[in-house]
Amino acid sequence: MRKRKKEVIGMDFQVTLDTLWVIIAGILVFFMNLGFATVESGFARSKNTVNILSKNFIVFAVSSLGFLLLGWGLMFGDGNGFIGLKGLFMASGADNSPAVGEAYRGVYTAISWAGVPFWAKFFFQLVFCGTAATIVSGVVAERIKYISFILFSFFLTLLVYPIVGHWVWGGGFLQSLGMLDFAGGTVVHSIGGWAGLTGAIILGPRIGKYTKDGKINPIPGHNLSMATIGAFVLWLGWFGFNPGSTMAANPVAISHILMTTNTAGILAVLTSTATAWLVIGKPDLGMSINGLLAGLVIITPCCAYVTIPAAMLLGAISGVLVVLAVIFFDRMKIDDPVGALAVHLVHGVLGTLAVGLFAKSGVAGIETENGLFYGGGFSLLGKQALGALCVGLFVCAASTIIWLLIKKTIGLRVSVKEEIEGLDIGEHGQQAYPEFASRSVSYTSIIRNLDDSEGKK
Amino acid sequence: MRKRKKEVIGMDFQVTLDTLWVIIAGILVFFMNLGFATVESGFARSKNTVNILSKNFIVFAVSSLGFLLLGWGLMFGDGNGFIGLKGLFMASGADNSPAVGEAYRGVYTAISWAGVPFWAKFFFQLVFCGTAATIVSGVVAERIKYISFILFSFFLTLLVYPIVGHWVWGGGFLQSLGMLDFAGGTVVHSIGGWAGLTGAIILGPRIGKYTKDGKINPIPGHNLSMATIGAFVLWLGWFGFNPGSTMAANPVAISHILMTTNTAGILAVLTSTATAWLVIGKPDLGMSINGLLAGLVIITPCCAYVTIPAAMLLGAISGVLVVLAVIFFDRMKIDDPVGALAVHLVHGVLGTLAVGLFAKSGVAGIETENGLFYGGGFSLLGKQALGALCVGLFVCAASTIIWLLIKKTIGLRVSVKEEIEGLDIGEHGQQAYPEFASRSVSYTSIIRNLDDSEGKK
Amino acid sequence: MRKRKKEVIGMDFQVTLDTLWVIIAGILVFFMNLGFATVESGFARSKNTVNILSKNFIVFAVSSLGFLLLGWGLMFGDGNGFIGLKGLFMASGADNSPAVGEAYRGVYTAISWAGVPFWAKFFFQLVFCGTAATIVSGVVAERIKYISFILFSFFLTLLVYPIVGHWVWGGGFLQSLGMLDFAGGTVVHSIGGWAGLTGAIILGPRIGKYTKDGKINPIPGHNLSMATIGAFVLWLGWFGFNPGSTMAANPVAISHILMTTNTAGILAVLTSTATAWLVIGKPDLGMSINGLLAGLVIITPCCAYVTIPAAMLLGAISGVLVVLAVIFFDRMKIDDPVGALAVHLVHGVLGTLAVGLFAKSGVAGIETENGLFYGGGFSLLGKQALGALCVGLFVCAASTIIWLLIKKTIGLRVSVKEEIEGLDIGEHGQQAYPEFASRSVSYTSIIRNLDDSEGKK
Repeated sequence: MRKRKKEVIGMDFQVTLDTLWVIIAGILVFFMNLGFATVESGFARSKNTVNILSKNFIVFAVSSLGFLLLGWGLMFGDGNGFIGLKGLFMASGADNSPAVGEAYRGVYTAISWAGVPFWAKFFFQLVFCGTAATIVSGVVAERIKYISFILFSFFLTLLVYPIVGHWVWGGGFLQSLGMLDFAGGTVVHSIGGWAGLTGAIILGPRIGKYTKDGKINPIPGHNLSMATIGAFVLWLGWFGFNPGSTMAANPVAISHILMTTNTAGILAVLTSTATAWLVIGKPDLGMSINGLLAGLVIITPCCAYVTIPAAMLLGAISGVLVVLAVIFFDRMKIDDPVGALAVHLVHGVLGTLAVGLFAKSGVAGIETENGLFYGGGFSLLGKQALGALCVGLFVCAASTIIWLLIKKTIGLRVSVKEEIEGLDIGEHGQQAYPEFASRSVSYTSIIRNLDDSEGKK
Repeated sequence: MRKRKKEVIGMDFQVTLDTLWVIIAGILVFFMNLGFATVESGFARSKNTVNILSKNFIVFAVSSLGFLLLGWGLMFGDGNGFIGLKGLFMASGADNSPAVGEAYRGVYTAISWAGVPFWAKFFFQLVFCGTAATIVSGVVAERIKYISFILFSFFLTLLVYPIVGHWVWGGGFLQSLGMLDFAGGTVVHSIGGWAGLTGAIILGPRIGKYTKDGKINPIPGHNLSMATIGAFVLWLGWFGFNPGSTMAANPVAISHILMTTNTAGILAVLTSTATAWLVIGKPDLGMSINGLLAGLVIITPCCAYVTIPAAMLLGAISGVLVVLAVIFFDRMKIDDPVGALAVHLVHGVLGTLAVGLFAKSGVAGIETENGLFYGGGFSLLGKQALGALCVGLFVCAASTIIWLLIKKTIGLRVSVKEEIEGLDIGEHGQQAYPEFASRSVSYTSIIRNLDDSEGKK
Repeated sequence: MRKRKKEVIGMDFQVTLDTLWVIIAGILVFFMNLGFATVESGFARSKNTVNILSKNFIVFAVSSLGFLLLGWGLMFGDGNGFIGLKGLFMASGADNSPAVGEAYRGVYTAISWAGVPFWAKFFFQLVFCGTAATIVSGVVAERIKYISFILFSFFLTLLVYPIVGHWVWGGGFLQSLGMLDFAGGTVVHSIGGWAGLTGAIILGPRIGKYTKDGKINPIPGHNLSMATIGAFVLWLGWFGFNPGSTMAANPVAISHILMTTNTAGILAVLTSTATAWLVIGKPDLGMSINGLLAGLVIITPCCAYVTIPAAMLLGAISGVLVVLAVIFFDRMKIDDPVGALAVHLVHGVLGTLAVGLFAKSGVAGIETENGLFYGGGFSLLGKQALGALCVGLFVCAASTIIWLLIKKTIGLRVSVKEEIEGLDIGEHGQQAYPEFASRSVSYTSIIRNLDDSEGKK
């Protein structure tokens, strides 16, 4: 193997340091795919496990293809305020990375501030794009056709995510305006959330979830060991997600961001557990896990701009709100099997707004506009709200079009029979645990109350 | 997102290198929380799985809070030989990290040798504190109330761990004396072990574990797949735990420590498997796993001070001893469902003593006093023994007080009925695997022999 | 703990950067042991789970010992074209690493190009050696005696792997000839594959897999959640395996290799899923997972020498071929429970040949001979084919001798009774899931057709 390249000796150490950090952080974010796969499958029923694992397994492949074919170019290609126009296909535009600033020669100017080789930039942005797509998976679980999910993910990562990404990180109008989204509360989490919300509405709820007489049937997850593995893996991955978004080995910034991230997460674990104890009567593990995720999401857009006490406050609030949000979506009869809307949509938006309140220039060595609570007035808050709104409107519209196109052509939802028997047999001809005997499951009685119309959407 | 900060260019490369290493190592250590969660739940019964996962999930949140509120200050704040006194609350004392040595201005002098930003130091120390707390969880599993465990963990990480940590790493009397504990055999593993030991004694054994007629009933773990996942994750995490304790990107030291760590672990896997084969009759996977952990614990305090052959010897010994120690605690009727005392307590202490025997200055480029076998006489061994003793006495006393306070106020142990039915339903209103049918489990017959008094402690 | 070493300040930053990268990449590769353990156990039956986990757990311990005792010396010790002869035992030959080039003084010249401390080199090479051994485990699963597998692994890592490794990476005749194997398609994957192939033939198929009348009975895996965890963990680990094989923190090279690796993998996921859909009728998750692995294996030897479009093409081809290869081995009645031959053997060889076709000097900043498609003619292709052939012949011969020696002495295969009841009880006296009830499993009916002679091999 491998001869030591002489030229590396003379290279800029900072480029090497930054590259190591970006790649390692990107690898951690990649690993979040495992976290999403296990949280989602653990929170769902065993009869749909193979399907959920398959969706979460292939979604990163689909995202990688979509983002390579066109997504990267639309997002970071030089263009106008709405869309990238140069170097569109196969990420093959001119580029002399790791050159930065005035030395940069290429068509991906908006990300030329990151002093790392081109493919390091690409990989790091790719894993973010993949995260947005995998969030959708949870919301539409247990009833969507496999091929339909694959197609939606492809268009999301080929077109929708990159266009919004261009607005906020690719030199588009929201970035020009001064909207701030450090690690992707709006770009990643709210995109995934809005796309999932439209999908959940268009698909309709799972059979038996909401009965005619207005009752909400809880459908417990089949494997909380898997879900907990996923929670820890996501927690781990977030230490790449947020601190890695520096895209530079800036010691003060990454240390600070690591702490705001963890601190918001742990406060949310504590308050969500307490809230569940008070509201539901028991400290539900699922709520603790969703609390963690809500805390990690709310801090994502602001992790480099806020103090540790602010991170504590935001985390504490998110842990309470996520429990209420789960209940809210259920009351609205929007069926989200894993609570992904309560986590990613609600807290992606809230975190984006929180930047407008809590941003304090220089806390992590990064200068920024101050938020309302630090003398910045309503200026930044207004930009944040405008950004969140524009993104929400666009993603809802675009996602709705894609969902409906798929629905009209190949269909979105599996048959009633397949849904009741489980998607594993119907879609994949397999079972996740063919040797384990089933307990007579509570939802069989639920199905008796089945309102036929529910299954037909 | 993220503008490249110009000032980073001019920063000291060594600070950046050290910070990357400390943060990445810390993230690996954080991930050990998943390892402890899955080893513990896999080695316990399915009816207590949600409870165990919940404990292991919330314990890092509780630790993070306790260590931030007061723990860090008590441990590293300037003070006297017994306790830190400055910058106590919220880790908010003066500090100009990453300045080191004479350039340091702040109140956390004892750790000013580490040339990384403040929050990087904090995070790395936090994940160690969290590890001590999570060790306790395994010892008291399957019978402790959820809230009681949370409270104990809070006080352990707020007070007990930091005070001992001050003695050994925070400029306290044991550090002044010259006691050596490179990566926390005494500080992390023995603290967790002693705290767990007092808890196990005060709680008493699980119902049905020891019968009136003196029989010891084995209670097999419900999911060895989970336990094995945990073992590999802990192995991985240890590559951050030990080499990361350099808190500097010292290439020779971290390479050497990586090898002593792995070598002790693998020898212990081999000897524990062989010992189980001889003593129990079969190569029990649980013993192989506990062998690994024993090898990793024994090398923890000495990993930077011993040669590779010494690591082999220590690992080999620990693999034999852990099997005998598991049997010993069972004969003593100290019920430790996962073998955590045999692993962490016994080998945390033994490893600390081993420094006094095997320490050889300069083996990893780090100068130190020599141990008995390298011409240092009994001097270092005496300090090590004194340190282990003082820590043991203090942690036992402090833990006992905390356990008893909790017992007298809100109670420590779940009801007999809840313990028999499982803590998942009683504490959390959930089941880990609601869809999998149970085999008629062997421990139901055990319960018939139930000595009522056992459940009442 | 740990005093900051003053001397580190003056050390070469490049050595530190390279060491961090090599160690972190090595740790990721180590973690692949978990991936292999969970993929293999998930794809096998629950009655053999403890045995499979035990094999995968101990195999890294055995490999670590074999490679330390003699393997490293045979592989990298100065010697002739066939074998290392100096510094054979305990990796204790003279060595002044991290000195490189002319400054190097020692007996491990062939790897003196890597400018990292000795134990960092050793650890990185060790985890590769361990990977080869763990590949064998899957092929011989569900019927081999535990002790027999341990012994084979020991000799493989003590003798076979190191000798072949010497030829290709240790200054041996294939390296002198100019054969290229960047990250171990021949050295790691084909060695594991050939060793497994001979084992599978000598052991014979599992009872009930192939019936007298020529029918092939599918034996479904017991836990696809575990298998999917393993797939993601292996994917993660490959980001250390391939980019880490630079053994230097070369930013351009590691970024490029990261992308060729991921791109080949994701294309293979897509084409294997599509191929399964067409050939089997459903998008089988097991085929998606084996597709990923095939794509990652085929790119392994060429990851630093090929363009992104070539990686796409190779990945796409491997996804189709792996499905056909699984079917091929089944038709040949070579029983490979997890598809490891179709993945590692077939694609390890194909990837090695692909270097001869697709190599393009300088794509990752590394100069090399060009392959056939880039004007290099048949020269490189011939060397690659010769290398693959020599390695195949030697490993088959050596493995056969070892397998037969074990068979003649202590035996290779468990008894028919034990195989039917499961190796967990027979070999380990344990069950992986003692509390979960079994469904009447489909293979019980298979056993009725049992051809007795099958079990006697």
